[in-house]
Amino acid sequence: MGSLEVERKTVGWAARDPSGVLSPYAYTLRDTGSEDVYVKVMCCGICHTDIHQTKNDLGMSNYPMVPGHEVVGEVIEVGSEVTKFRSGDVVGVGCLVGCCGKCRPCNADIEQYCSKKIWSYNDVYTDGKPTQGGFAGAMVVDQKFVVKIPDGMAPEQAAPLLCAGVTVYSPLNHFGLKQSGLRGGILGLGGVGHMGVKIAKAMGHHVTVISSSDKKRVEALDHLGADDYLVSSDAARVQEAADSLDYIIDTIPVFHPLEPYLSLLKIDGKLILMGVINTPLQFVSPMVMLGRKSITGSFIGSIKETEEMLDFCKDKGLTSTIEIVKMDYINTAFERLEKNDVRYRFVVDVAGSKLDQ
Amino acid sequence: MGSLEVERKTVGWAARDPSGVLSPYAYTLRDTGSEDVYVKVMCCGICHTDIHQTKNDLGMSNYPMVPGHEVVGEVIEVGSEVTKFRSGDVVGVGCLVGCCGKCRPCNADIEQYCSKKIWSYNDVYTDGKPTQGGFAGAMVVDQKFVVKIPDGMAPEQAAPLLCAGVTVYSPLNHFGLKQSGLRGGILGLGGVGHMGVKIAKAMGHHVTVISSSDKKRVEALDHLGADDYLVSSDAARVQEAADSLDYIIDTIPVFHPLEPYLSLLKIDGKLILMGVINTPLQFVSPMVMLGRKSITGSFIGSIKETEEMLDFCKDKGLTSTIEIVKMDYINTAFERLEKNDVRYRFVVDVAGSKLDQ
Repeated sequence: MGSLEVERKTVGWAARDPSGVLSPYAYTLRDTGSEDVYVKVMCCGICHTDIHQTKNDLGMSNYPMVPGHEVVGEVIEVGSEVTKFRSGDVVGVGCLVGCCGKCRPCNADIEQYCSKKIWSYNDVYTDGKPTQGGFAGAMVVDQKFVVKIPDGMAPEQAAPLLCAGVTVYSPLNHFGLKQSGLRGGILGLGGVGHMGVKIAKAMGHHVTVISSSDKKRVEALDHLGADDYLVSSDAARVQEAADSLDYIIDTIPVFHPLEPYLSLLKIDGKLILMGVINTPLQFVSPMVMLGRKSITGSFIGSIKETEEMLDFCKDKGLTSTIEIVKMDYINTAFERLEKNDVRYRFVVDVAGSKLDQ
Repeated sequence: MGSLEVERKTVGWAARDPSGVLSPYAYTLRDTGSEDVYVKVMCCGICHTDIHQTKNDLGMSNYPMVPGHEVVGEVIEVGSEVTKFRSGDVVGVGCLVGCCGKCRPCNADIEQYCSKKIWSYNDVYTDGKPTQGGFAGAMVVDQKFVVKIPDGMAPEQAAPLLCAGVTVYSPLNHFGLKQSGLRGGILGLGGVGHMGVKIAKAMGHHVTVISSSDKKRVEALDHLGADDYLVSSDAARVQEAADSLDYIIDTIPVFHPLEPYLSLLKIDGKLILMGVINTPLQFVSPMVMLGRKSITGSFIGSIKETEEMLDFCKDKGLTSTIEIVKMDYINTAFERLEKNDVRYRFVVDVAGSKLDQ
């Protein structure tokens, strides 16, 4: 094995401008460097971030942009220094494909907090070329950012774990919230929230889904296996549940008051924010002081945690709830996701799609 | 030893109404119960909370009210079941004199978070009578809420440790921030802040005092031994110091923006709020998420931590910076404290004062 000496092309689906509409786009992949893994994409999950990026909601988008950061594929070729993988392995690639390797976070195996991290797409790689994501025929990725998908785990099941899954696993791991018997709250039941319910249940937690309306009650209790369902406007039930939760994973991506949720936490409880919200959130200091509560947050997860989380999900037989679509449906899928019209994650069957039309 | 069979009177200085003016007030102490310690007060520190309470700033004041919760005294008599103390011991009493003894916080030795805790003053004891604080000749206190002052520590030095001292020691202890080599920030240089500098320095931390003006620079660096001084409006220096602190102890008791301080924290850094502020504080979620930072708070400390902290201060030879006054100066001292005109804690020499005039 080693580098191919020919220019290697692939076809992905790229946004060309802030309309965010994706269409076929051919581009060149780099040769397989000594530390690289050349991956043929099998499937890729759609994350809400993909919409923000393709539509330039954060004002940092460069086009053409091939999104996709919940990528599962098959290893086709590995570089000469690659020891972790070989051809035929089923592997995953998440949000990141690079980091500095030298800073405090990198040395602590929390490379997701490296200030020089390189995103899987809409970023610039060390070779000066744009990174492109997983809605494409293939990717070339540094082995450090590739994880093995456990034997027997279906690729389309694994895909949402690589971002949504590790995003909830990481804070539970970091903040010492993995032991069974804890009581957790999941605020918001989208792609990350649904995974939160499943992972917390698999850890043996008592899980309360907290929502602004009664709409998702049956879904939460009967289909996802939550233990309780709390409507945040139901003052009597919120009062009854005061001081009862060890943590709340808050996936709401827009402004919301924090007090009702802080009141649900036990002493030393943690409110873990997952949504990037640029409108200031508010709280009064006695709400945290008088119960030594923490308002904190977390951002995806490390490669190490991704590996642990995949093994954990395999052991527990945890499955994602997904809707599988072909690539020619991706623009419709983005539109539906914007309206939260999906249970709970779209996964694009990339290998089973015609990419060039 | 045992209960005296006579009614026992003492004289304290009490506020009679929300003017907060203190004057002599004679009242009855309960007999020394089997678990009680009868303490002759030697000295008592003045905390900012005393002003809030005597002036009814929190709307929960009952009069007459004898404030004072940084009390050092000599044991005169102990109840039949008291094993920890004997006559002649120098002991301390802090903010609390009771708790339920059965709840989760009580069982975890963090009785300061018990919802049935009983305050040293302006509260109702288990016998239905009002509790009265340390600006008085004597107190009768359950042994669980009495701590031994280490041999050789001056009473007036010990007094401010019983509230201000443990208030900063407790979060450093609880949040795993005691090891040497950490970098801490102290925001606000009042009674608690000055103790924060001293305790953090004694732990071997690099300490930066953060202030709104340059006024206290010499004081912080030369007299308190801080390593650095940062004016929060100096954008260039604040930028330079970004991502440099493991924690900030925030003692500011009024509304202030949190972003500049969150930016100073390293990944996993903690902003620990100490000020009861009922105006909502604000932050944007990426400020916590992208560095897994925590906004948290802490409230005084436990009896166990008070004992640890006193031993720690004795070992390190840590002294409080105080101004000793007599009881007839207490109203002036309260006025000066309201204007922050004290370096850094008033301690009333109760035993050396005439209390009844």
